[in-house]
Amino acid sequence: MRDVLDAVAAGELTPAEAEAKLSGYATSGAGRFDAARESRSGVPEAILGDGKTPGEVSELAATAVETIGRAIVTRIDAAGAAAVSDALGETPATVRWDGRANWLVATVPAFERPDLDAAVGIVTAGTSDAVPAGEAALIAREMGATVDRIDDVGVASLARTVDAVSRLRERDVLIVAAGREGALPTVVAGLVDTPVIALPVSTGYGHGGAGEAALSGMLQSCTALSVVNIDAGFTAGTQAGLIARQIAAARDR
Amino acid sequence: MRDVLDAVAAGELTPAEAEAKLSGYATSGAGRFDAARESRSGVPEAILGDGKTPGEVSELAATAVETIGRAIVTRIDAAGAAAVSDALGETPATVRWDGRANWLVATVPAFERPDLDAAVGIVTAGTSDAVPAGEAALIAREMGATVDRIDDVGVASLARTVDAVSRLRERDVLIVAAGREGALPTVVAGLVDTPVIALPVSTGYGHGGAGEAALSGMLQSCTALSVVNIDAGFTAGTQAGLIARQIAAARDR
Amino acid sequence: MRDVLDAVAAGELTPAEAEAKLSGYATSGAGRFDAARESRSGVPEAILGDGKTPGEVSELAATAVETIGRAIVTRIDAAGAAAVSDALGETPATVRWDGRANWLVATVPAFERPDLDAAVGIVTAGTSDAVPAGEAALIAREMGATVDRIDDVGVASLARTVDAVSRLRERDVLIVAAGREGALPTVVAGLVDTPVIALPVSTGYGHGGAGEAALSGMLQSCTALSVVNIDAGFTAGTQAGLIARQIAAARDR
Amino acid sequence: MRDVLDAVAAGELTPAEAEAKLSGYATSGAGRFDAARESRSGVPEAILGDGKTPGEVSELAATAVETIGRAIVTRIDAAGAAAVSDALGETPATVRWDGRANWLVATVPAFERPDLDAAVGIVTAGTSDAVPAGEAALIAREMGATVDRIDDVGVASLARTVDAVSRLRERDVLIVAAGREGALPTVVAGLVDTPVIALPVSTGYGHGGAGEAALSGMLQSCTALSVVNIDAGFTAGTQAGLIARQIAAARDR
Amino acid sequence: MRDVLDAVAAGELTPAEAEAKLSGYATSGAGRFDAARESRSGVPEAILGDGKTPGEVSELAATAVETIGRAIVTRIDAAGAAAVSDALGETPATVRWDGRANWLVATVPAFERPDLDAAVGIVTAGTSDAVPAGEAALIAREMGATVDRIDDVGVASLARTVDAVSRLRERDVLIVAAGREGALPTVVAGLVDTPVIALPVSTGYGHGGAGEAALSGMLQSCTALSVVNIDAGFTAGTQAGLIARQIAAARDR
Amino acid sequence: MRDVLDAVAAGELTPAEAEAKLSGYATSGAGRFDAARESRSGVPEAILGDGKTPGEVSELAATAVETIGRAIVTRIDAAGAAAVSDALGETPATVRWDGRANWLVATVPAFERPDLDAAVGIVTAGTSDAVPAGEAALIAREMGATVDRIDDVGVASLARTVDAVSRLRERDVLIVAAGREGALPTVVAGLVDTPVIALPVSTGYGHGGAGEAALSGMLQSCTALSVVNIDAGFTAGTQAGLIARQIAAARDR
Amino acid sequence: MRDVLDAVAAGELTPAEAEAKLSGYATSGAGRFDAARESRSGVPEAILGDGKTPGEVSELAATAVETIGRAIVTRIDAAGAAAVSDALGETPATVRWDGRANWLVATVPAFERPDLDAAVGIVTAGTSDAVPAGEAALIAREMGATVDRIDDVGVASLARTVDAVSRLRERDVLIVAAGREGALPTVVAGLVDTPVIALPVSTGYGHGGAGEAALSGMLQSCTALSVVNIDAGFTAGTQAGLIARQIAAARDR
Amino acid sequence: MRDVLDAVAAGELTPAEAEAKLSGYATSGAGRFDAARESRSGVPEAILGDGKTPGEVSELAATAVETIGRAIVTRIDAAGAAAVSDALGETPATVRWDGRANWLVATVPAFERPDLDAAVGIVTAGTSDAVPAGEAALIAREMGATVDRIDDVGVASLARTVDAVSRLRERDVLIVAAGREGALPTVVAGLVDTPVIALPVSTGYGHGGAGEAALSGMLQSCTALSVVNIDAGFTAGTQAGLIARQIAAARDR
Repeated sequence: MRDVLDAVAAGELTPAEAEAKLSGYATSGAGRFDAARESRSGVPEAILGDGKTPGEVSELAATAVETIGRAIVTRIDAAGAAAVSDALGETPATVRWDGRANWLVATVPAFERPDLDAAVGIVTAGTSDAVPAGEAALIAREMGATVDRIDDVGVASLARTVDAVSRLRERDVLIVAAGREGALPTVVAGLVDTPVIALPVSTGYGHGGAGEAALSGMLQSCTALSVVNIDAGFTAGTQAGLIARQIAAARDR
Repeated sequence: MRDVLDAVAAGELTPAEAEAKLSGYATSGAGRFDAARESRSGVPEAILGDGKTPGEVSELAATAVETIGRAIVTRIDAAGAAAVSDALGETPATVRWDGRANWLVATVPAFERPDLDAAVGIVTAGTSDAVPAGEAALIAREMGATVDRIDDVGVASLARTVDAVSRLRERDVLIVAAGREGALPTVVAGLVDTPVIALPVSTGYGHGGAGEAALSGMLQSCTALSVVNIDAGFTAGTQAGLIARQIAAARDR
Repeated sequence: MRDVLDAVAAGELTPAEAEAKLSGYATSGAGRFDAARESRSGVPEAILGDGKTPGEVSELAATAVETIGRAIVTRIDAAGAAAVSDALGETPATVRWDGRANWLVATVPAFERPDLDAAVGIVTAGTSDAVPAGEAALIAREMGATVDRIDDVGVASLARTVDAVSRLRERDVLIVAAGREGALPTVVAGLVDTPVIALPVSTGYGHGGAGEAALSGMLQSCTALSVVNIDAGFTAGTQAGLIARQIAAARDR
Repeated sequence: MRDVLDAVAAGELTPAEAEAKLSGYATSGAGRFDAARESRSGVPEAILGDGKTPGEVSELAATAVETIGRAIVTRIDAAGAAAVSDALGETPATVRWDGRANWLVATVPAFERPDLDAAVGIVTAGTSDAVPAGEAALIAREMGATVDRIDDVGVASLARTVDAVSRLRERDVLIVAAGREGALPTVVAGLVDTPVIALPVSTGYGHGGAGEAALSGMLQSCTALSVVNIDAGFTAGTQAGLIARQIAAARDR
Repeated sequence: MRDVLDAVAAGELTPAEAEAKLSGYATSGAGRFDAARESRSGVPEAILGDGKTPGEVSELAATAVETIGRAIVTRIDAAGAAAVSDALGETPATVRWDGRANWLVATVPAFERPDLDAAVGIVTAGTSDAVPAGEAALIAREMGATVDRIDDVGVASLARTVDAVSRLRERDVLIVAAGREGALPTVVAGLVDTPVIALPVSTGYGHGGAGEAALSGMLQSCTALSVVNIDAGFTAGTQAGLIARQIAAARDR
Repeated sequence: MRDVLDAVAAGELTPAEAEAKLSGYATSGAGRFDAARESRSGVPEAILGDGKTPGEVSELAATAVETIGRAIVTRIDAAGAAAVSDALGETPATVRWDGRANWLVATVPAFERPDLDAAVGIVTAGTSDAVPAGEAALIAREMGATVDRIDDVGVASLARTVDAVSRLRERDVLIVAAGREGALPTVVAGLVDTPVIALPVSTGYGHGGAGEAALSGMLQSCTALSVVNIDAGFTAGTQAGLIARQIAAARDR
Repeated sequence: MRDVLDAVAAGELTPAEAEAKLSGYATSGAGRFDAARESRSGVPEAILGDGKTPGEVSELAATAVETIGRAIVTRIDAAGAAAVSDALGETPATVRWDGRANWLVATVPAFERPDLDAAVGIVTAGTSDAVPAGEAALIAREMGATVDRIDDVGVASLARTVDAVSRLRERDVLIVAAGREGALPTVVAGLVDTPVIALPVSTGYGHGGAGEAALSGMLQSCTALSVVNIDAGFTAGTQAGLIARQIAAARDR
Repeated sequence: MRDVLDAVAAGELTPAEAEAKLSGYATSGAGRFDAARESRSGVPEAILGDGKTPGEVSELAATAVETIGRAIVTRIDAAGAAAVSDALGETPATVRWDGRANWLVATVPAFERPDLDAAVGIVTAGTSDAVPAGEAALIAREMGATVDRIDDVGVASLARTVDAVSRLRERDVLIVAAGREGALPTVVAGLVDTPVIALPVSTGYGHGGAGEAALSGMLQSCTALSVVNIDAGFTAGTQAGLIARQIAAARDR
């Protein structure tokens, strides 16, 4: 602790960096930022934009950038992204925003993203799966994995699915996103020997709509799948990222 | 009406046959038998064994045999089948019982089953689909259709599914039965241009078990399906039988 | 394949037409268009407007028109329809839009819609069933069937239902749409020997509202019905169209 | 109160009768019997056999007979009925038991059932509706109404339904019982101007089974119905009995 | 029929009145109006404003006024009410609109509302029950019953409930509306010997919100109730109106 | 730790007592017994008999008696109770078993139950609430509270409820158990200023049966209640016991 | 009563105060205000802003201030708060509004809030729990308890939870709010011997979203919890307030 | 193919082995055995005993042993296990049966189980999690992983959970089983950087019982989890086995 305090006194650490080092989290007016989460559980702390005001999001993002050099925000709209850009305007951080998958990443030049020797394949049945698939891709990349997108291979045109098999078998772990009846992960898992994480998407209407049919079908699958909640691209991406970390660590041995 | 009454007086019609001709149904102590159903709606009246005592089932079956020459009973167990056999022991009727799919058919020698120039394909994902598939096959055959069974082609081993495609395309109408996640009808309907009736089966456990996941997946299917209730093999078979009747009538033109 | 490439070289095929011929689908910036779907599964590929921007819809519609001569769009609002009209303004295609049932069809002059010798009856209980019934009518017509509408015959005024019976019996296949308690398909199927596809509609409120009571009642029907999802007019229409195709093919023999 | 106590002292009242007069309920080892219920709310207190041991049922029935001269027990099986008969063996009470609808009524000779100038019609769709319909008939009769049964008029054979209309219109109030999709009350209420109480029955299987489809359909009915819970024949019968009481009182004026 | 046609020729009947007399319904561009409903089922045909455009509502209302002299519209907002007023501006009809309970009634001067010698009590637990209670009151009055409102007697302040008992016992039939846990109808039915129709209201939030807890509690009530769907004030009012008609007819004898 | 080990060596502590003192739990072949639970969370560790074999239950009970001098077992049937009695036959422990509420308590003579100066009132609507109410009473007594039962005061006979008010107001905390529509806790909480814990009971049938209507009604209550799960008498009793502990501690000050 | 009327005549009581004293409630155009609620059930009457117009809220609030000197309003937005401020502008009342937790309290200078010697701890898992936690804090304070907030201690960073234990153990009763999977109350109740009231929050999405997963997890908790409905901060606060009242009363002895 | 046929002719291959090599599956009277499943999808084909007769299970098991040298049967009771032992009595195969977790494995002496350099940790909250955890352990071991059980670390005694952390962090992948509220996987995943597969168990009763609360809580978890269906130990084990295969392959590089 004395080293940290000396560094603050010497101006080498900001107070926020020092608090994060000492207590594991940084405090802003909009809440706590769990700076130690990544080292403890392998998953970078991300800011969920949904349900927060642009001001709250930008304050938390600024704290994250100041503390650990990177802010990851999910479910953030244009107004939120603009607020973050403004808040970081004076800093050396650069901001990337994906308006389709609604995520934002800001990093300072010195930030080094992990680089894992492991590949995550992200498969979609159709274009309506783009948002959760994009969220999954974002976080898997930020955790250091190589990400490969294999899109639009839904089972209504089975030839497209079968054509993709050899490419699917080459990845270390797969995330397979589908809405409506959600059959794609079942079909894929019967064709490959890669672990498959099924990601149900909230498309569809009427009975079993909003992703419920897809979720229950994936839970009942006659092939081996693990599943995340409806539209939980972030969770699917972190789970794939953790598996990729284990594989990369094994390769590094 | 006078002709009917004359025929009764002359002993050419039993009272039950006469009642059926005049009012459209025969009455027994166990309830009414809708003798006119087949001519009106194309579907033979069947006796649901479930929830009836062996005595009630055998009384209704005897009335059916006496009135229209055939009794069809579904969801009937060994005790019920024995009671029907006993009740018909004095009559010239012959009894067939399928202890796997739990149906029984009794016919007098003079009974002529319709003979349609149309084929119904009944497809199952696995052996646990046998009971509702058997019920569907029974009623489609009794309505006069040719029935072809294509079993054990579930999507966990996709090659088996794909291998069956040319055989599937040759039928006039398909019933596709599946439990768990119920993906088979969706995959089949994407590969053939035949009408597909999806039959969800009450396998599976946990969330979406008892056929609910299969039903909701089939209702949400991204390919064109119509659906019947969980385990409703009888309904699937009659719907396929009605379609086969239309096709056969068109061929007869 | 060489023929196709020669034709492209000679300017007789656009690249999109060539891609569709070779790979079975055409690619646009907004996604893939499954050009081979109709030949494979008998159902024309349609574009679901719901959840797409006007720009995406119009891009996909233009690709469809360019590739196979016809674009069918469902669940498209006025803004989407205007975007499609603009996108096709330079082409010889003509556009029809139904603002009540929310569909749009664009065809080039050379496009020939199939013409089947088979009739689909579409029955509604009341005026609130118009949107899904209209969607069903659209796609059945585009598949080539003759479509006959029998409207406003709900069971609250049973005489209207009974009066329609002889007209209902003359169709080759019936779609019967109803909301609230959804009793109409059950009553109709007891009166005719035509196959009935039941289409539950998302009317009603409170317990069992949004079409759930109608759906579960149709699945439990004591007469022979197959069912589609709530408001799934498109699915009902394609299923009826596939049956009509089979009947027409039988008549053509 | 003094009169009651004098009567007990004189042996003209049993202690149970006296307690019931004074406090409104009689106490036995198996619980309280609400002797004042009928005078307060118009509905005779009945003993629900379900979930009680034969001993508890017979003790409560004996208390009821001793206190008000009649015991009504619903959902009572053969063992329970035998226990009640034994318990009342020494008394002058006579016992009727209906093994089909599972009710029992015991009365002392002096008991006078009310006699209302009003008729309740109880309508069933099929034989599987017999148990709740029988429970409804029991309690309506014990409240003094004339009860008329109109059985087996389900909508699958609509002619039977329509044939019964004039008979249905003659009753003062109707209970209409149906399972599966539960369409019969809706159809009946569109044909008569009598109040209809819809009684859903726990038949059916799969989605919407156990009476849930029937219940939700009746709640969504496009005709005017009030509804009771699934298999709640007792509640339907008491509601019809209360209406009959009001009508009979009006006739008595 | 000849008389009707003669009357049309003589200008004594409008074509709409003539069509209504002959076929039982009048046709407008916005759908059919079931003019014979009241004579057949005792319930006046009402127009549900919900889900219709102001134009459709006003067209149907004008047809109703022209045909039978009265239009009843439920779930109609200010825009709809204005459209109806405009449409009827040239006619002698007078329009009443209740902006709280969202109903509208238009009558021609010659219209005579039935006048029944029977009273309906409408009871509410709190102010949030006003809309469905108002709908119930409207239709009961239009059917001719006397209506008495007893408001704000919820069980949280039980003294208010108990204070109202003698007033409640004087009505011929009661409608009791309550949201949240819906306990009021149960408590009332234990205190009176009048038939009680329970009307669940869509208040409340979280688990069992939107009226589902109230509905299921009323269906499970340990006192005798019949129930209508959530917010179905119209259905509750018509059921009470039909009972009032029976009682009034009995009084008239 | 040295003291504990010395005591073991001296035979003053059994190894099980020593393990419990050192690690907080005792280990048997059938699982761990959390001996420190009561001191940490105020709630005595209890053994749930449901789903365990008689052998497992008796082994765990013996460990509990050996370690802390008392075993509390809930949901234990006659076979389980006999097994526990056998297992403790050689010990000085005495066993009480309640066959109605299915609990068992075994204590060694030296065991001293806490004795709190606080009273828990346990209220039931009817006799079917006895099992969860009995479970609640057991655990509240074992935690040291005085327990007072107020039975059979359901709202169908409101006078009985109101008569009990003064007695209810005298307790420090109330548990109110009810099934069916579960209205009793709402009514009670409106009449007293004591904290009320609502305990829904799994009576009832049809829609909202198995306690779901009672649970959702209690969660929606318009008076102030906290709620436990359906039939969770043990949880209700421990919550009341914890509140009684706080009150008794305050009184002891 | 005479005293009250004399006081009115003398101008010492307003008519509203007099009505509240005599009948237990005050009447305004927007409904009744239950002025006796606090003395009877220990819980101050509060006005639920949700679903009322600003005018209705301000009228009820003015009646409350006039009658008992304090108005508590929950779920009130900025427009409602402004309307109340306007309505009270002429009076000596002061208004506090919390725009985050959406509550408002207005008091006259003479109003004396109770002051209890008891402390309620209110614990949140994260910032999204602020609104219901704030509502709970408000009402507990208005009932006189000391309130201590312990925020942002969710189990994803378990160290934060464990760090708070000693502070949690010092309160007399705890409210623990959590959304998503709702694990925090279970973990807290295993660490403290204080009564815990679990407050599920409507965060989360997909299956089990809107607080349903949190609610069902809290009801199933393996530690001792009582639960309130989703987002029912008001109910949690009143329940904690009632417990605090009992403890404070015990301390006062 | 010729080689295979030559080997059959030479008696080096049984016909079953030959069929399995050529078509990918072996056929018995009881259904198909997918012999190629393991090579294709990495998961050994297992026989689900549930819903099959002892005769069918033993026939399939014999086919499996004959074809690939090993039979894995899950959800098999004592009768099924005895039938398999009998059927294999003449063969050199040895049979292991776990009567607690209900699995059976039979292997011929020559069978070589894979041996992966990777460890799966299987964690349970309590003893009621033993059956699905045992199923998971079985299949992970049969796929070649090292399996480590960490039992009885539920969050009600948080110290036990925290004590296990270092041991948990050493495994390559974790399966965490829990019933009731299912909080353990959430807590574990916040403490380790290993991928966690959550396995909900069908314990608990009342609302959210049968594992539904655990499943929905795990899907909503605020830490990174993937989930399998309720009691789906087999699926959890295969998913962990596939991840272990990837890690072991990486280590082998």
